[in-house]
Amino acid sequence: MIRWQLFAALAVGLLATRQTRAEDAAKPIRELLDTQVKSWNKSDLKGFMDGYWNSPELTFYSGRDVRKGWQETFKRYRDRYQKDGAEMGRLTFSDLSIESLADKTMLVRGRWKLELKKGNLDGLFSLIVKEKPEGWRIVHDHTSVGEPEKKP
Amino acid sequence: MIRWQLFAALAVGLLATRQTRAEDAAKPIRELLDTQVKSWNKSDLKGFMDGYWNSPELTFYSGRDVRKGWQETFKRYRDRYQKDGAEMGRLTFSDLSIESLADKTMLVRGRWKLELKKGNLDGLFSLIVKEKPEGWRIVHDHTSVGEPEKKP
Repeated sequence: MIRWQLFAALAVGLLATRQTRAEDAAKPIRELLDTQVKSWNKSDLKGFMDGYWNSPELTFYSGRDVRKGWQETFKRYRDRYQKDGAEMGRLTFSDLSIESLADKTMLVRGRWKLELKKGNLDGLFSLIVKEKPEGWRIVHDHTSVGEPEKKP
Repeated sequence: MIRWQLFAALAVGLLATRQTRAEDAAKPIRELLDTQVKSWNKSDLKGFMDGYWNSPELTFYSGRDVRKGWQETFKRYRDRYQKDGAEMGRLTFSDLSIESLADKTMLVRGRWKLELKKGNLDGLFSLIVKEKPEGWRIVHDHTSVGEPEKKP
C-alpha cells in the first residue's frame, strides 16, 4: 500500500513540476504580449513595437501583404493608426495558446480585438517568438481579420 | 599559397555541403506542397488533405475562424468547395520560404492564388510542418486572404 501511495505522490509531484515548467516557459511570452497590449492602449506604438525582433529579417504577414523588417512593420502601423487623426482604439488579446517548438522557440496563437469608434475589428494571429540576446521577440507574425460584422 | 587555396577549396566545399543540406531538408516540404496543389487541381480534396496532420490537434486559422482537428478542417473545405456546384478552381503556391525551426519542425511561408470563374482569390499562408511517424505533415495553418481586387 505504502508503495502505491509513494508512487501516486511522485506522479502528482512530477505532473506538478511539468506544469510549473510549462507555465514558467510561457511567462515571458505572456509578459511580452501584456506589454504590447498596455503600450498600444497608451498610444505608445514604439512600446508595442518593442515586442518585435528589431531586424530586417522580421516578417509580418496579413491579408495578401508581406512586410519585411522592423522598420517597414513600424511604418505600416504608423501610417494606419497614427496618421491624420487615425485612432489606435482599445486592443485586447484572448484565447492564447503558447506552445514550445524548440529550445528558445515558441508558437503563439490567439485572438485579437480592436475597438474603434468607426467599428470594431477582430481576427486571429499566429506568432513565432524566439529568445534573442535582447530577450523574447516576435520574429514572424501572421495576422488575419474577420469580415466586418453586419450591423442589424 | 597552397594553404590559402586549400582553405578556399574547403570553405567552398563546406558552403556547398551546407546549401545541399538545406535543400535536402526542404525537399519533403516541397513535395508535400506539390502534392497538395496537384490534388486540389484534380478536385481530389482527400489528396489535398493528406498534407495535414490527421489529428484532433491540427489547427487551421483563417479570418476570425479557428478550425480544430483534421475532420473539421476537411468538412470546412468540403462545404466551401465541393457543395452545390461549388468549383475548386486552379490553385498555385508561390514565394515559398522554408525555414527549419528545430529538428523535424519547419516554418513554411508563402503566397496562394485560387483562380475561380466567379473571380480570383489570393493571400498568404504560414505553416508549421512537423515530421510525424507517417511523414511530414502540416500541424498548424494560418491562411489570410487579400481584399477582392476591384474591377476597373
